Amino acid sequence: MKTTTIDEQRLLGRIRELGVIGLDAQGRRTRLAADDNDRLGRDAFAGWARSAGLDVLVDRIGNMFAIWGSLTEGGPKPLLIGSHIDSVIDAGALDGCFGVLAGLEAIESLKAMGINPPFPVAVAAFTNEEGVRYAPDMMGSAVFAGSVSADAALASIGTDGTRLGDELARIGYAGSVEPGFFKPRAYVEIHIEQGPVLEREGMDIGIVEGVQGISWKRVTINGQANHAGTTPMSLRTDAGVAAARIVTFLDDLARKETDALVATVGTLSLLPSAINVVPGRAILTIDMRSSSSDLLLAAEEQLEAFLAELHKRSSCRVEVESLARTEPVAFDSDLLDLVEDEAISSGQKTRRMTSGAGHDAQMIAPIAPTAMLFVPSRGGISHNPLEDTEENQLVAGANLLTAVVKRLLRGSS
Amino acid sequence: MKTTTIDEQRLLGRIRELGVIGLDAQGRRTRLAADDNDRLGRDAFAGWARSAGLDVLVDRIGNMFAIWGSLTEGGPKPLLIGSHIDSVIDAGALDGCFGVLAGLEAIESLKAMGINPPFPVAVAAFTNEEGVRYAPDMMGSAVFAGSVSADAALASIGTDGTRLGDELARIGYAGSVEPGFFKPRAYVEIHIEQGPVLEREGMDIGIVEGVQGISWKRVTINGQANHAGTTPMSLRTDAGVAAARIVTFLDDLARKETDALVATVGTLSLLPSAINVVPGRAILTIDMRSSSSDLLLAAEEQLEAFLAELHKRSSCRVEVESLARTEPVAFDSDLLDLVEDEAISSGQKTRRMTSGAGHDAQMIAPIAPTAMLFVPSRGGISHNPLEDTEENQLVAGANLLTAVVKRLLRGSS
Repeated sequence: MKTTTIDEQRLLGRIRELGVIGLDAQGRRTRLAADDNDRLGRDAFAGWARSAGLDVLVDRIGNMFAIWGSLTEGGPKPLLIGSHIDSVIDAGALDGCFGVLAGLEAIESLKAMGINPPFPVAVAAFTNEEGVRYAPDMMGSAVFAGSVSADAALASIGTDGTRLGDELARIGYAGSVEPGFFKPRAYVEIHIEQGPVLEREGMDIGIVEGVQGISWKRVTINGQANHAGTTPMSLRTDAGVAAARIVTFLDDLARKETDALVATVGTLSLLPSAINVVPGRAILTIDMRSSSSDLLLAAEEQLEAFLAELHKRSSCRVEVESLARTEPVAFDSDLLDLVEDEAISSGQKTRRMTSGAGHDAQMIAPIAPTAMLFVPSRGGISHNPLEDTEENQLVAGANLLTAVVKRLLRGSS
Repeated sequence: MKTTTIDEQRLLGRIRELGVIGLDAQGRRTRLAADDNDRLGRDAFAGWARSAGLDVLVDRIGNMFAIWGSLTEGGPKPLLIGSHIDSVIDAGALDGCFGVLAGLEAIESLKAMGINPPFPVAVAAFTNEEGVRYAPDMMGSAVFAGSVSADAALASIGTDGTRLGDELARIGYAGSVEPGFFKPRAYVEIHIEQGPVLEREGMDIGIVEGVQGISWKRVTINGQANHAGTTPMSLRTDAGVAAARIVTFLDDLARKETDALVATVGTLSLLPSAINVVPGRAILTIDMRSSSSDLLLAAEEQLEAFLAELHKRSSCRVEVESLARTEPVAFDSDLLDLVEDEAISSGQKTRRMTSGAGHDAQMIAPIAPTAMLFVPSRGGISHNPLEDTEENQLVAGANLLTAVVKRLLRGSS
């Protein structure tokens, strides 16, 4: 079978070019939604799309679409590829950008082969996926899919006090088209894994079956601060020990589920925080994720039971707040099978997996059959300038995306 | 048996008067070693001592001695009573001050009875017991006993950049007498418990057999920071979980020793400290204390073994620093028996115990037979404006101290 081949140097060159946009004097890369650096990134993407002969459309929330073919009301639904080009602070060059540029490369390569698409193919660069400057994250795709209203999103006030709508207008990316003005026939997103699994297992491609559900909680434990020397163990109500028992309980709980559940206590503070004072208060956060709705719920229930037991055993008063809760999202199994088949046909080693991070794909999944692919992340590092993927792995991923698009075009022609 | 009786109102009035010295506009009580408030406190103590007809001597490190009788070279060794009147920041009114004022009250009462002491009796107010402004703590008593040199102590630079020797001269309490110019025949100190044991058990007096040995350590755990969603449990090196396992290990270890050992993790911080990041580093402090030298050493060894095991099990790199280490101090058993006998004779409910906090008495113990007595602390609270002891308990303690001094005077006459 002949492997579809992209222009590797063009792809890698654009990743590098986009990657230097937003570097500050210290070499820190930052392109926050609708800031001046985001404008420069958008300009670059629009320029490459136009030079490839594609139309560029911008909707009211600033989502950009580079369109191959004619997108008309009543015409055939387009195939949508997408990701984002906004970044976190001091970011790597690949998160989001790889997906957008690989999508552009797929279209440009297929177009260069003289293929005449039976339906439009578009590459989306969704606004504000990272959610660093404006909340919530995955905003552009959520507005596109209709789960967040455009007006509410445009009214978001940023961490710097600005209004997203004003900032989009200021940088020239407040479009007039209504978000969701078309419904895609399918959505495909390729992204770096941002985790260590593919690299550790020597895999080329992750076939992403869905996105984990997330449960974020804050637990406040009130005990009794006391002198560390004069208070016998039997008379203590040590909030720090109670907190530690929660941490070890969660670790044990998640490890029992052999990677179908992850649980993390990422923040933990003790008060009054003195070497010779028994902690009177402890505050910690819990991050639990699973691709199984049942497993996540069961974990929450087990935690609740443990906290009730802990309260009885330790006399500490335990308060729990829910900070965030999302249900797991499952991608389209037929489309995933197609992607996997295409990957294996081209000699890639694949692995089924779920995404622990949030992606635009999960927002699009309710309105279109959706598939997601991962390429490996070196050391599992992301949201960090050390974020990296081997060039041959980027090329292999983009080739696979191109092959998938080609097959979808052929399948419908 | 007739109970020795002090002038209750005089004692309680002086405690109140000393307690308002050093209150700021917000009502926070602070008298740090050799500051302006300490000077006012010293002036008050010296004034009361002189009005009772006692000589007041100040040594080079600022220790004050109110002396009943004639202290001469080659003459009989004096009985020493003592404690301190410096305080922590935002302190209670009793810590240290009660011991000094109860000592003064004992002498004044016995003097008023027309007793002619066969040897001098002195009340010491030792400089800088708290160690808040200048290190180390228990400085004046350590210099008096010869375990710290006067010149080194006077050269201490405070948290505010001042030199202790200069500050003592500035407030008029840099004496010319060499510290340790006399050796006491015995030393007795009465203090508030600063712990909850006497109150919980309904006891009046603690017979303090010694001061716990202390082991302070800082543990730094280096793991690997990772994305909380994308890093499976099996691929984590979570420094926070390792820290939590140390906390629960220590709690379990100390509880096995039924209050003969206390262990506290009072500070614990996680890095990078984000809800969705597996902690890559954890730093915690350990405070272990025991009145048994063997038990404290065994606990340190068990901790070391546990950390080695933890390193193997978790792959985290664990570094341990010793921050402080003192051996337990045992007070004089004959003198303790005498104090206990006197307490029981006067109808007090007593309990043998060890002190978890440091006291001047532990510095004096190497050079003279030493005993210490505790009165209850309400709620075990100390180093806090809520520090409190019932007035009848203070009076009972001062009466007992007076009876002990009376008996020591009689025993030698």
